[in-house]
Amino acid sequence: MSLPFSEALTAAVRRTRTPLCVGIDPWPDRLPWPGLGTDRRALAARAEGFGLAVVRAVAGEVPAVKPQFAFFEQLGAPGMAALERVCHAAREAGLLVVADAKRGDIGTTAAAYAAAVFGPDAPFPADALTISPFLGPDSLTPFVDAADRHGGGLFVLLRTSNPGSARWQAPVRADLTRWLAENAALRTGSDHLSPLGAVVGATHPGELAEARAALPTSWLLVPGYGAQGGTAADVAPAARPDGLGALIVSARGATFPDRADPAWAADPEPWIRARVRSLVADVAAAWPEIRKG
Amino acid sequence: MSLPFSEALTAAVRRTRTPLCVGIDPWPDRLPWPGLGTDRRALAARAEGFGLAVVRAVAGEVPAVKPQFAFFEQLGAPGMAALERVCHAAREAGLLVVADAKRGDIGTTAAAYAAAVFGPDAPFPADALTISPFLGPDSLTPFVDAADRHGGGLFVLLRTSNPGSARWQAPVRADLTRWLAENAALRTGSDHLSPLGAVVGATHPGELAEARAALPTSWLLVPGYGAQGGTAADVAPAARPDGLGALIVSARGATFPDRADPAWAADPEPWIRARVRSLVADVAAAWPEIRKG
Repeated sequence: MSLPFSEALTAAVRRTRTPLCVGIDPWPDRLPWPGLGTDRRALAARAEGFGLAVVRAVAGEVPAVKPQFAFFEQLGAPGMAALERVCHAAREAGLLVVADAKRGDIGTTAAAYAAAVFGPDAPFPADALTISPFLGPDSLTPFVDAADRHGGGLFVLLRTSNPGSARWQAPVRADLTRWLAENAALRTGSDHLSPLGAVVGATHPGELAEARAALPTSWLLVPGYGAQGGTAADVAPAARPDGLGALIVSARGATFPDRADPAWAADPEPWIRARVRSLVADVAAAWPEIRKG
Repeated sequence: MSLPFSEALTAAVRRTRTPLCVGIDPWPDRLPWPGLGTDRRALAARAEGFGLAVVRAVAGEVPAVKPQFAFFEQLGAPGMAALERVCHAAREAGLLVVADAKRGDIGTTAAAYAAAVFGPDAPFPADALTISPFLGPDSLTPFVDAADRHGGGLFVLLRTSNPGSARWQAPVRADLTRWLAENAALRTGSDHLSPLGAVVGATHPGELAEARAALPTSWLLVPGYGAQGGTAADVAPAARPDGLGALIVSARGATFPDRADPAWAADPEPWIRARVRSLVADVAAAWPEIRKG
Protein backbone atom coordinates (compact mmCIF):
# COMPACT_ATOMS: atom_id res chain seq x y z
CA MET A 1 0.00 0.00 0.00
CA SER A 2 1.43 3.38 -0.86
CA LEU A 3 -0.91 5.58 1.22
CA PRO A 4 -1.83 4.83 4.84
CA PHE A 5 -5.40 3.57 5.21
CA SER A 6 -7.12 6.79 6.20
CA GLU A 7 -5.64 8.81 3.36
CA ALA A 8 -6.24 6.02 0.86
CA LEU A 9 -9.86 5.88 1.98
CA THR A 10 -10.26 9.65 1.74
CA ALA A 11 -8.87 9.54 -1.80
CA ALA A 12 -11.12 6.61 -2.76
CA VAL A 13 -14.28 8.23 -1.35
CA ARG A 14 -13.44 11.46 -3.21
CA ARG A 15 -12.73 9.60 -6.43
CA THR A 16 -15.90 7.49 -6.41
CA ARG A 17 -18.01 10.26 -4.78
CA THR A 18 -19.66 7.80 -2.46
CA PRO A 19 -19.04 6.42 1.04
CA LEU A 20 -20.66 3.08 0.16
CA CYS A 21 -18.79 -0.10 1.09
CA VAL A 22 -20.20 -3.29 -0.42
CA GLY A 23 -20.17 -6.37 1.80
CA ILE A 24 -19.17 -9.73 0.36
CA ASP A 25 -21.28 -12.27 2.30
CA PRO A 26 -21.26 -15.59 0.43
CA TRP A 27 -24.30 -16.98 2.18
CA PRO A 28 -24.14 -20.72 1.33
CA ASP A 29 -27.91 -21.27 1.00
CA ARG A 30 -28.27 -18.49 -1.54
CA LEU A 31 -25.14 -18.61 -3.70
CA PRO A 32 -25.39 -18.31 -7.49
CA TRP A 33 -24.76 -21.25 -9.84
CA PRO A 34 -26.82 -23.79 -7.87
CA GLY A 35 -26.11 -26.37 -10.59
CA LEU A 36 -22.50 -26.63 -9.41
CA GLY A 37 -23.56 -28.53 -6.30
CA THR A 38 -23.52 -28.11 -2.55
CA ASP A 39 -20.59 -30.13 -1.26
CA ARG A 40 -17.99 -28.00 0.49
CA ARG A 41 -15.63 -27.66 -2.48
CA ALA A 42 -18.50 -26.71 -4.79
CA LEU A 43 -19.77 -24.16 -2.28
CA ALA A 44 -16.24 -22.72 -1.97
CA ALA A 45 -16.02 -22.41 -5.77
CA ARG A 46 -19.43 -20.73 -5.85
CA ALA A 47 -18.44 -18.41 -2.97
CA GLU A 48 -15.30 -17.44 -4.84
CA GLY A 49 -17.23 -16.84 -8.05
CA PHE A 50 -19.72 -14.71 -6.12
CA GLY A 51 -16.94 -12.71 -4.44
CA LEU A 52 -15.17 -12.11 -7.76
CA ALA A 53 -18.49 -11.08 -9.36
CA VAL A 54 -19.01 -8.51 -6.60
CA VAL A 55 -15.47 -7.21 -7.13
CA ARG A 56 -15.97 -6.84 -10.90
CA ALA A 57 -19.42 -5.29 -10.42
CA VAL A 58 -18.32 -2.59 -7.95
CA ALA A 59 -14.74 -1.78 -9.03
CA GLY A 60 -14.64 1.93 -9.80
CA GLU A 61 -18.16 2.41 -8.38
CA VAL A 62 -17.38 2.40 -4.62
CA PRO A 63 -14.25 2.87 -2.50
CA ALA A 64 -14.23 -0.45 -0.65
CA VAL A 65 -15.54 -3.96 -0.19
CA LYS A 66 -16.00 -5.84 3.08
CA PRO A 67 -15.59 -9.61 2.88
CA GLN A 68 -17.26 -11.37 5.81
CA PHE A 69 -14.75 -13.98 7.04
CA ALA A 70 -17.38 -16.21 8.70
CA PHE A 71 -18.98 -17.28 5.43
CA PHE A 72 -15.62 -18.37 4.02
CA GLU A 73 -14.49 -20.03 7.28
CA GLN A 74 -17.69 -22.07 7.35
CA LEU A 75 -16.47 -23.75 4.13
CA GLY A 76 -13.15 -24.80 5.66
CA ALA A 77 -9.77 -24.58 3.93
CA PRO A 78 -11.30 -24.39 0.41
CA GLY A 79 -13.40 -21.46 1.62
CA MET A 80 -10.34 -19.73 3.04
CA ALA A 81 -8.51 -20.29 -0.28
CA ALA A 82 -11.49 -18.58 -1.97
CA LEU A 83 -11.19 -15.70 0.53
CA GLU A 84 -7.46 -15.34 -0.29
CA ARG A 85 -8.28 -14.96 -3.97
CA VAL A 86 -11.19 -12.57 -3.40
CA CYS A 87 -9.01 -10.28 -1.24
CA HIS A 88 -6.24 -10.26 -3.84
CA ALA A 89 -8.69 -9.62 -6.69
CA ALA A 90 -10.31 -6.72 -4.86
CA ARG A 91 -7.01 -4.98 -4.28
CA GLU A 92 -5.93 -5.59 -7.86
CA ALA A 93 -9.22 -3.96 -8.95
CA GLY A 94 -8.34 -0.84 -6.95
CA LEU A 95 -10.81 -1.49 -4.14
CA LEU A 96 -9.89 -1.08 -0.50
CA VAL A 97 -10.56 -4.26 1.50
CA VAL A 98 -12.14 -4.11 4.96
CA ALA A 99 -11.69 -7.58 6.49
CA ASP A 100 -14.80 -8.16 8.59
CA ALA A 101 -13.53 -10.74 11.06
CA LYS A 102 -14.28 -9.12 14.45
CA ARG A 103 -11.13 -10.71 15.84
CA GLY A 104 -10.01 -10.24 19.42
CA ASP A 105 -7.32 -11.97 21.45
CA ILE A 106 -4.19 -11.17 23.44
CA GLY A 107 -0.44 -10.94 22.88
CA THR A 108 1.11 -13.06 20.15
CA THR A 109 -2.33 -14.53 19.35
CA ALA A 110 -3.71 -11.09 18.52
CA ALA A 111 -0.52 -10.44 16.52
CA ALA A 112 -1.18 -13.65 14.56
CA TYR A 113 -4.70 -12.49 13.63
CA ALA A 114 -3.24 -9.14 12.54
CA ALA A 115 -0.56 -10.91 10.47
CA ALA A 116 -3.33 -12.75 8.60
CA VAL A 117 -4.42 -9.46 6.99
CA PHE A 118 -1.64 -6.85 7.29
CA GLY A 119 1.76 -6.80 5.61
CA PRO A 120 3.24 -7.75 2.26
CA ASP A 121 2.94 -11.51 2.89
CA ALA A 122 -0.51 -11.54 4.52
CA PRO A 123 -2.60 -14.43 3.17
CA PHE A 124 -5.84 -12.41 3.27
CA PRO A 125 -4.50 -8.97 2.30
CA ALA A 126 -6.70 -6.20 3.62
CA ASP A 127 -6.52 -2.48 4.16
CA ALA A 128 -8.49 -2.57 7.41
CA LEU A 129 -9.77 -5.11 9.94
CA THR A 130 -12.75 -5.09 12.31
CA ILE A 131 -11.77 -5.99 15.89
CA SER A 132 -13.57 -6.52 19.19
CA PRO A 133 -12.30 -4.58 22.21
CA PHE A 134 -13.77 -6.88 24.91
CA LEU A 135 -10.43 -8.34 26.03
CA GLY A 136 -9.16 -4.90 27.00
CA PRO A 137 -6.87 -2.12 25.75
CA ASP A 138 -3.74 -4.31 25.96
CA SER A 139 -5.46 -6.78 23.61
CA LEU A 140 -5.83 -4.01 21.01
CA THR A 141 -2.15 -3.01 21.08
CA PRO A 142 -0.86 -5.84 18.83
CA PHE A 143 -3.51 -4.94 16.24
CA VAL A 144 -2.69 -1.23 16.45
CA ASP A 145 1.05 -1.93 16.21
CA ALA A 146 0.59 -4.12 13.11
CA ALA A 147 -1.74 -1.56 11.51
CA ASP A 148 0.72 1.25 12.22
CA ARG A 149 3.60 -0.78 10.81
CA HIS A 150 1.82 -1.65 7.57
CA GLY A 151 -0.37 1.40 6.95
CA GLY A 152 -3.50 -0.57 7.83
CA GLY A 153 -6.74 0.58 9.42
CA LEU A 154 -8.83 -0.79 12.28
CA PHE A 155 -12.53 -0.53 13.07
CA VAL A 156 -13.17 -1.28 16.73
CA LEU A 157 -16.67 -2.50 17.63
CA LEU A 158 -18.32 0.32 19.58
CA ARG A 159 -22.06 -0.07 18.96
CA THR A 160 -23.19 -2.90 16.72
CA SER A 161 -26.39 -2.87 14.69
CA ASN A 162 -28.23 -5.76 16.40
CA PRO A 163 -31.16 -5.21 18.79
CA GLY A 164 -29.29 -6.56 21.85
CA SER A 165 -26.08 -4.61 21.32
CA ALA A 166 -26.56 -2.13 24.16
CA ARG A 167 -26.57 -4.71 26.95
CA TRP A 168 -22.80 -5.27 27.17
CA GLN A 169 -21.67 -2.32 25.03
CA ALA A 170 -23.47 0.60 26.70
CA PRO A 171 -21.74 0.09 30.10
CA VAL A 172 -18.29 0.53 28.53
CA ARG A 173 -19.13 2.94 25.73
CA ALA A 174 -17.97 6.18 27.34
CA ASP A 175 -14.62 4.77 28.40
CA LEU A 176 -14.05 2.92 25.12
CA THR A 177 -14.92 6.07 23.17
CA ARG A 178 -12.37 8.00 25.23
CA TRP A 179 -9.69 5.35 24.55
CA LEU A 180 -10.49 5.47 20.84
CA ALA A 181 -10.48 9.28 20.64
CA GLU A 182 -7.11 9.51 22.39
CA ASN A 183 -5.45 6.83 20.29
CA ALA A 184 -6.99 8.06 17.03
CA ALA A 185 -5.84 11.63 17.70
CA LEU A 186 -2.22 10.38 17.90
CA ARG A 187 -2.46 9.07 14.34
CA THR A 188 -4.18 11.73 12.23
CA GLY A 189 -3.02 12.37 8.67
CA SER A 190 -3.37 15.27 6.27
CA ASP A 191 -7.15 14.67 6.12
CA HIS A 192 -7.39 15.06 9.92
CA LEU A 193 -8.66 11.50 10.06
CA SER A 194 -6.85 8.51 11.48
CA PRO A 195 -6.63 4.80 10.65
CA LEU A 196 -8.20 3.93 14.03
CA GLY A 197 -11.94 3.84 13.45
CA ALA A 198 -15.06 2.47 15.08
CA VAL A 199 -18.09 0.37 14.12
CA VAL A 200 -21.39 2.13 14.87
CA GLY A 201 -24.61 0.65 13.49
CA ALA A 202 -27.00 2.61 11.28
CA THR A 203 -29.84 1.26 13.40
CA HIS A 204 -28.96 3.80 16.12
CA PRO A 205 -29.07 7.17 14.30
CA GLY A 206 -28.79 9.32 17.43
CA GLU A 207 -25.65 7.48 18.40
CA LEU A 208 -24.09 8.02 14.99
CA ALA A 209 -24.15 11.77 15.55
CA GLU A 210 -22.83 11.27 19.09
CA ALA A 211 -20.00 9.03 17.87
CA ARG A 212 -19.19 11.52 15.09
CA ALA A 213 -18.84 14.29 17.67
CA ALA A 214 -16.92 12.21 20.22
CA LEU A 215 -14.54 10.70 17.65
CA PRO A 216 -13.68 13.65 15.42
CA THR A 217 -10.61 11.95 13.90
CA SER A 218 -12.05 8.44 13.40
CA TRP A 219 -13.59 6.85 10.36
CA LEU A 220 -16.89 5.20 11.31
CA LEU A 221 -17.84 1.92 9.67
CA VAL A 222 -21.63 1.88 9.59
CA PRO A 223 -23.42 -1.43 9.07
CA GLY A 224 -27.20 -1.70 9.06
CA TYR A 225 -28.02 0.49 6.06
CA GLY A 226 -30.67 -1.10 3.86
CA ALA A 227 -31.50 -4.68 4.78
CA GLN A 228 -31.22 -4.03 8.52
CA GLY A 229 -33.52 -1.00 8.38
CA GLY A 230 -31.30 2.11 8.43
CA THR A 231 -32.14 4.67 5.72
CA ALA A 232 -29.71 6.93 3.87
CA ALA A 233 -30.97 9.84 5.96
CA ASP A 234 -30.30 7.82 9.12
CA VAL A 235 -26.65 7.30 8.17
CA ALA A 236 -25.83 10.84 7.00
CA PRO A 237 -24.95 12.07 10.54
CA ALA A 238 -22.03 9.63 10.55
CA ALA A 239 -20.08 11.91 8.18
CA ARG A 240 -18.28 15.15 8.84
CA PRO A 241 -19.62 18.32 7.18
CA ASP A 242 -17.26 17.70 4.23
CA GLY A 243 -18.85 14.28 3.65
CA LEU A 244 -15.81 12.29 4.79
CA GLY A 245 -15.33 10.09 7.87
CA ALA A 246 -18.01 7.44 7.35
CA LEU A 247 -18.06 4.24 5.36
CA ILE A 248 -21.63 3.00 4.88
CA VAL A 249 -22.02 -0.75 4.48
CA SER A 250 -24.54 -2.54 2.34
CA ALA A 251 -23.98 -6.27 2.13
CA ARG A 252 -26.82 -8.62 1.29
CA GLY A 253 -29.07 -5.75 0.20
CA ALA A 254 -26.52 -4.83 -2.46
CA THR A 255 -25.69 -8.32 -3.66
CA PHE A 256 -28.69 -10.68 -3.24
CA PRO A 257 -32.13 -10.24 -4.80
CA ASP A 258 -35.07 -10.34 -2.39
CA ARG A 259 -36.42 -13.47 -4.02
CA ALA A 260 -35.03 -16.24 -6.22
CA ASP A 261 -33.94 -14.76 -9.56
CA PRO A 262 -32.63 -17.14 -12.23
CA ALA A 263 -30.86 -14.33 -14.12
CA TRP A 264 -28.95 -13.35 -10.95
CA ALA A 265 -28.17 -17.00 -10.17
CA ALA A 266 -26.68 -17.45 -13.65
CA ASP A 267 -24.68 -14.20 -13.66
CA PRO A 268 -24.98 -11.94 -10.61
CA GLU A 269 -22.56 -9.25 -11.82
CA PRO A 270 -24.94 -7.00 -13.86
CA TRP A 271 -27.63 -7.22 -11.17
CA ILE A 272 -25.14 -6.23 -8.46
CA ARG A 273 -23.72 -3.34 -10.53
CA ALA A 274 -27.21 -1.93 -11.15
CA ARG A 275 -28.22 -2.36 -7.52
CA VAL A 276 -25.05 -0.72 -6.22
CA ARG A 277 -25.55 2.24 -8.56
CA SER A 278 -29.05 2.74 -7.18
CA LEU A 279 -27.75 2.53 -3.60
CA VAL A 280 -25.02 5.05 -4.42
CA ALA A 281 -27.69 7.40 -5.74
CA ASP A 282 -29.84 6.82 -2.65
CA VAL A 283 -26.96 7.69 -0.32
CA ALA A 284 -25.94 10.71 -2.43
CA ALA A 285 -29.47 12.13 -2.19
CA ALA A 286 -29.18 12.21 1.61
CA TRP A 287 -25.55 13.28 1.51
CA PRO A 288 -25.08 16.23 -0.85
CA GLU A 289 -21.45 16.94 0.12
CA ILE A 290 -20.39 13.63 -1.38
CA ARG A 291 -21.58 14.55 -4.86
CA LYS A 292 -19.20 17.49 -5.07
CA GLY A 293 -16.24 15.09 -4.78
CA MET B 1 -20.53 -37.22 19.15
CA SER B 2 -22.47 -39.66 21.24
CA LEU B 3 -22.52 -37.76 24.56
CA PRO B 4 -23.33 -34.06 24.88
CA PHE B 5 -20.23 -31.97 25.61
CA SER B 6 -20.58 -31.59 29.36
CA GLU B 7 -21.11 -35.29 29.99
CA ALA B 8 -18.36 -36.24 27.55
CA LEU B 9 -16.01 -33.86 29.37
CA THR B 10 -16.99 -35.24 32.78
CA ALA B 11 -16.28 -38.76 31.54
CA ALA B 12 -12.95 -37.71 30.00
CA VAL B 13 -11.77 -35.88 33.14
CA ARG B 14 -12.71 -38.92 35.24
CA ARG B 15 -10.97 -41.30 32.86
CA THR B 16 -7.71 -39.34 32.63
CA ARG B 17 -7.90 -38.13 36.26
CA THR B 18 -6.85 -34.64 35.29
CA PRO B 19 -8.55 -31.39 34.26
CA LEU B 20 -5.60 -30.38 32.09
CA CYS B 21 -6.34 -29.17 28.54
CA VAL B 22 -3.30 -28.82 26.30
CA GLY B 23 -3.25 -25.85 23.94
CA ILE B 24 -2.07 -26.27 20.36
CA ASP B 25 -0.43 -22.94 19.48
CA PRO B 26 1.71 -23.39 16.37
CA TRP B 27 3.77 -20.27 16.92
CA PRO B 28 5.46 -19.73 13.52
CA ASP B 29 8.79 -18.40 14.85
CA ARG B 30 9.29 -21.40 17.09
CA LEU B 31 7.96 -24.40 15.16
CA PRO B 32 9.91 -27.67 15.04
CA TRP B 33 11.68 -28.90 11.88
CA PRO B 34 13.28 -25.54 10.99
CA GLY B 35 15.05 -27.22 8.06
CA LEU B 36 11.72 -27.49 6.22
CA GLY B 37 11.73 -23.74 5.53
CA THR B 38 9.68 -20.69 6.34
CA ASP B 39 7.50 -20.00 3.35
CA ARG B 40 3.80 -20.21 4.11
CA ARG B 41 3.30 -23.78 2.84
CA ALA B 42 6.35 -25.00 4.76
CA LEU B 43 5.12 -23.27 7.92
CA ALA B 44 1.67 -24.83 7.46
CA ALA B 45 3.27 -28.28 7.09
CA ARG B 46 5.34 -27.66 10.21
CA ALA B 47 2.28 -26.37 12.11
CA GLU B 48 0.36 -29.51 11.12
CA GLY B 49 3.26 -31.74 12.18
CA PHE B 50 3.44 -29.89 15.49
CA GLY B 51 -0.32 -30.20 16.06
CA LEU B 52 -0.28 -33.90 15.25
CA ALA B 53 2.73 -34.40 17.56
CA VAL B 54 0.80 -32.73 20.40
CA VAL B 55 -2.19 -34.97 19.68
CA ARG B 56 -0.06 -38.16 19.75
CA ALA B 57 1.81 -36.98 22.86
CA VAL B 58 -1.28 -36.24 24.96
CA ALA B 59 -3.87 -38.78 23.75
CA GLY B 60 -4.95 -40.79 26.77
CA GLU B 61 -3.09 -38.41 29.10
CA VAL B 62 -5.54 -35.48 29.22
CA PRO B 63 -9.22 -34.98 28.38
CA ALA B 64 -8.90 -32.25 25.76
CA VAL B 65 -6.80 -30.14 23.45
CA LYS B 66 -7.35 -26.51 22.51
CA PRO B 67 -6.17 -25.50 19.04
CA GLN B 68 -5.64 -21.74 18.74
CA PHE B 69 -7.24 -20.73 15.44
CA ALA B 70 -5.18 -17.53 15.04
CA PHE B 71 -1.89 -19.36 14.47
CA PHE B 72 -3.43 -21.44 11.68
CA GLU B 73 -5.31 -18.50 10.14
CA GLN B 74 -2.07 -16.52 9.98
CA LEU B 75 -0.79 -19.14 7.51
CA GLY B 76 -3.76 -18.72 5.16
CA ALA B 77 -5.62 -21.54 3.45
CA PRO B 78 -2.75 -24.05 3.89
CA GLY B 79 -2.81 -23.26 7.60
CA MET B 80 -6.57 -23.80 7.76
CA ALA B 81 -6.12 -27.13 5.93
CA ALA B 82 -3.61 -28.06 8.64
CA LEU B 83 -6.17 -27.05 11.29
CA GLU B 84 -8.81 -29.28 9.65
CA ARG B 85 -6.48 -32.27 9.89
CA VAL B 86 -5.39 -31.52 13.46
CA CYS B 87 -9.02 -31.27 14.64
CA HIS B 88 -9.92 -34.56 12.93
CA ALA B 89 -6.82 -36.30 14.31
CA ALA B 90 -7.54 -35.14 17.86
CA ARG B 91 -11.07 -36.49 17.81
CA GLU B 92 -9.92 -39.76 16.26
CA ALA B 93 -7.42 -40.03 19.13
CA GLY B 94 -10.26 -39.73 21.66
CA LEU B 95 -9.46 -36.17 22.69
CA LEU B 96 -12.15 -33.53 23.07
CA VAL B 97 -11.43 -30.46 20.96
CA VAL B 98 -11.96 -26.95 22.33
CA ALA B 99 -11.78 -24.59 19.34
CA ASP B 100 -10.17 -21.42 20.65
CA ALA B 101 -11.42 -18.88 18.15
CA LYS B 102 -13.11 -16.26 20.37
CA ARG B 103 -15.66 -15.67 17.62
CA GLY B 104 -18.49 -13.20 17.95
CA ASP B 105 -20.96 -11.85 15.41
CA ILE B 106 -24.70 -11.60 14.81
CA GLY B 107 -27.43 -13.54 13.06
CA THR B 108 -26.51 -15.75 10.13
CA THR B 109 -22.88 -14.62 10.44
CA ALA B 110 -22.67 -16.03 13.97
CA ALA B 111 -24.42 -19.16 12.70
CA ALA B 112 -21.72 -19.48 10.00
CA TYR B 113 -18.95 -19.36 12.62
CA ALA B 114 -20.80 -22.03 14.62
CA ALA B 115 -21.20 -24.19 11.50
CA ALA B 116 -17.42 -24.10 11.04
CA VAL B 117 -17.00 -26.24 14.17
CA PHE B 118 -20.32 -27.93 15.08
CA GLY B 119 -22.17 -30.66 13.20
CA PRO B 120 -21.30 -33.76 11.22
CA ASP B 121 -19.97 -31.80 8.22
CA ALA B 122 -18.07 -29.10 10.12
CA PRO B 123 -14.68 -28.45 8.49
CA PHE B 124 -12.96 -27.87 11.85
CA PRO B 125 -14.82 -30.39 14.01
CA ALA B 126 -14.78 -29.42 17.66
CA ASP B 127 -16.59 -30.32 20.86
CA ALA B 128 -16.61 -26.76 22.16
CA LEU B 129 -15.91 -23.22 20.97
CA THR B 130 -14.76 -20.07 22.77
CA ILE B 131 -16.96 -17.05 22.00
CA SER B 132 -17.00 -13.36 22.87
CA PRO B 133 -20.22 -11.90 24.30
CA PHE B 134 -19.53 -8.25 23.42
CA LEU B 135 -22.16 -8.02 20.67
CA GLY B 136 -24.94 -8.88 23.12
CA PRO B 137 -27.13 -11.78 24.20
CA ASP B 138 -28.86 -12.01 20.81
CA SER B 139 -25.43 -12.52 19.23
CA LEU B 140 -24.90 -15.58 21.43
CA THR B 141 -28.18 -17.25 20.47
CA PRO B 142 -27.02 -18.66 17.10
CA PHE B 143 -24.00 -20.20 18.85
CA VAL B 144 -26.14 -21.65 21.65
CA ASP B 145 -28.69 -23.02 19.16
CA ALA B 146 -25.97 -24.73 17.11
CA ALA B 147 -24.31 -26.13 20.24
CA ASP B 148 -27.65 -27.43 21.52
CA ARG B 149 -28.44 -29.01 18.17
CA HIS B 150 -25.12 -30.81 17.86
CA GLY B 151 -24.24 -31.58 21.49
CA GLY B 152 -21.47 -28.97 21.47
CA GLY B 153 -20.17 -26.79 24.28
CA LEU B 154 -19.42 -23.07 24.53
CA PHE B 155 -17.02 -21.10 26.68
CA VAL B 156 -18.05 -17.45 26.85
CA LEU B 157 -15.30 -14.93 27.65
CA LEU B 158 -16.04 -13.64 31.15
CA ARG B 159 -12.65 -12.62 32.58
CA THR B 160 -9.60 -13.14 30.42
CA SER B 161 -6.08 -13.70 31.76
CA ASN B 162 -4.40 -10.53 30.42
CA PRO B 163 -3.49 -7.55 32.65
CA GLY B 164 -5.98 -5.17 30.98
CA SER B 165 -8.95 -7.52 30.99
CA ALA B 166 -10.91 -5.76 33.73
CA ARG B 167 -11.31 -2.45 31.90
CA TRP B 168 -14.18 -3.47 29.60
CA GLN B 169 -15.12 -6.78 31.26
CA ALA B 170 -15.63 -5.68 34.89
CA PRO B 171 -18.47 -3.24 34.05
CA VAL B 172 -20.56 -6.03 32.52
CA ARG B 173 -19.42 -8.97 34.63
CA ALA B 174 -22.34 -9.16 37.04
CA ASP B 175 -24.97 -9.02 34.31
CA LEU B 176 -23.09 -11.39 32.00
CA THR B 177 -22.62 -13.84 34.88
CA ARG B 178 -26.37 -13.71 35.54
CA TRP B 179 -27.14 -14.38 31.86
CA LEU B 180 -24.71 -17.31 31.86
CA ALA B 181 -26.05 -18.81 35.09
CA GLU B 182 -29.64 -18.64 33.85
CA ASN B 183 -28.90 -20.15 30.47
CA ALA B 184 -26.54 -22.80 31.84
CA ALA B 185 -29.11 -23.90 34.41
CA LEU B 186 -31.58 -24.64 31.58
CA ARG B 187 -29.12 -27.15 30.09
CA THR B 188 -27.74 -29.24 32.93
CA GLY B 189 -27.10 -32.94 32.46
CA SER B 190 -26.73 -35.90 34.81
CA ASP B 191 -23.48 -34.39 36.15
CA HIS B 192 -25.33 -31.17 37.09
CA LEU B 193 -23.07 -29.36 34.68
CA SER B 194 -24.07 -27.75 31.41
CA PRO B 195 -22.44 -27.25 28.01
CA LEU B 196 -22.57 -23.46 28.49
CA GLY B 197 -19.31 -22.52 30.19
CA ALA B 198 -17.15 -19.48 30.77
CA VAL B 199 -13.52 -18.44 30.35
CA VAL B 200 -11.97 -17.16 33.59
CA GLY B 201 -8.21 -16.62 33.72
CA ALA B 202 -5.96 -18.30 36.30
CA THR B 203 -4.30 -14.94 36.83
CA HIS B 204 -7.30 -13.83 38.93
CA PRO B 205 -7.56 -16.53 41.65
CA GLY B 206 -10.15 -14.69 43.78
CA GLU B 207 -12.38 -14.40 40.76
CA LEU B 208 -12.12 -18.10 40.00
CA ALA B 209 -13.76 -18.90 43.33
CA GLU B 210 -16.35 -16.19 42.71
CA ALA B 211 -17.13 -17.51 39.23
CA ARG B 212 -17.31 -21.08 40.58
CA ALA B 213 -19.91 -19.96 43.15
CA ALA B 214 -21.90 -17.78 40.75
CA LEU B 215 -21.92 -20.35 37.92
CA PRO B 216 -22.57 -23.62 39.73
CA THR B 217 -23.61 -25.46 36.56
CA SER B 218 -20.92 -24.13 34.19
CA TRP B 219 -17.60 -25.61 33.18
CA LEU B 220 -14.88 -22.98 33.53
CA LEU B 221 -12.10 -22.88 30.96
CA VAL B 222 -9.06 -21.51 32.79
CA PRO B 223 -6.16 -20.10 30.76
CA GLY B 224 -3.09 -18.58 32.39
CA TYR B 225 -1.80 -21.63 34.29
CA GLY B 226 1.99 -21.95 33.95
CA ALA B 227 3.51 -19.61 31.40
CA GLN B 228 1.19 -16.71 32.31
CA GLY B 229 1.93 -17.05 36.04
CA GLY B 230 -1.02 -18.93 37.60
CA THR B 231 0.03 -21.84 39.86
CA ALA B 232 -1.79 -25.14 40.36
CA ALA B 233 -2.93 -23.87 43.76
CA ASP B 234 -4.28 -20.72 42.11
CA VAL B 235 -6.46 -22.72 39.73
CA ALA B 236 -7.85 -25.28 42.20
CA PRO B 237 -10.75 -22.99 43.31
CA ALA B 238 -12.13 -23.24 39.76
CA ALA B 239 -13.33 -26.81 40.45
CA ARG B 240 -16.30 -28.06 42.42
CA PRO B 241 -15.60 -30.08 45.57
CA ASP B 242 -15.75 -33.27 43.48
CA GLY B 243 -12.93 -31.98 41.27
CA LEU B 244 -15.14 -31.44 38.21
CA GLY B 245 -16.21 -28.22 36.50
CA ALA B 246 -12.87 -26.74 35.47
CA LEU B 247 -10.65 -27.31 32.48
CA ILE B 248 -7.15 -25.94 33.12
CA VAL B 249 -5.25 -24.83 30.04
CA SER B 250 -1.54 -25.08 29.47
CA ALA B 251 -0.47 -24.16 25.94
CA ARG B 252 3.05 -22.98 25.22
CA GLY B 253 4.28 -24.07 28.65
CA ALA B 254 3.25 -27.64 27.83
CA THR B 255 4.51 -27.77 24.27
CA PHE B 256 7.52 -25.43 23.78
CA PRO B 257 10.84 -25.63 25.65
CA ASP B 258 11.97 -22.42 27.35
CA ARG B 259 15.00 -22.19 25.09
CA ALA B 260 16.05 -23.65 21.73
CA ASP B 261 16.31 -27.44 22.04
CA PRO B 262 17.49 -29.39 18.98
CA ALA B 263 15.98 -32.66 20.28
CA TRP B 264 12.56 -31.02 20.61
CA ALA B 265 12.93 -29.38 17.18
CA ALA B 266 13.67 -32.76 15.59
CA ASP B 267 10.89 -34.67 17.40
CA PRO B 268 8.76 -32.72 19.88
CA GLU B 269 6.46 -35.62 20.84
CA PRO B 270 8.51 -37.26 23.67
CA TRP B 271 9.36 -33.86 25.18
CA ILE B 272 5.68 -32.81 25.15
CA ARG B 273 4.52 -36.13 26.66
CA ALA B 274 7.03 -35.85 29.50
CA ARG B 275 6.18 -32.21 30.13
CA VAL B 276 2.43 -32.86 30.12
CA ARG B 277 2.87 -35.73 32.60
CA SER B 278 4.75 -33.40 34.94
CA LEU B 279 2.03 -30.74 34.60
CA VAL B 280 -0.64 -33.36 35.29
CA ALA B 281 1.23 -34.32 38.48
CA ASP B 282 1.59 -30.64 39.45
CA VAL B 283 -2.14 -30.04 39.08
CA ALA B 284 -3.02 -33.28 40.89
CA ALA B 285 -0.90 -32.24 43.89
CA ALA B 286 -3.05 -29.13 44.33
CA TRP B 287 -6.24 -30.94 43.42
CA PRO B 288 -6.55 -34.19 45.40
CA GLU B 289 -10.13 -34.97 44.36
CA ILE B 290 -8.97 -35.50 40.79
CA ARG B 291 -6.68 -38.38 41.71
CA LYS B 292 -9.55 -40.45 43.03
CA GLY B 293 -11.09 -40.46 39.54
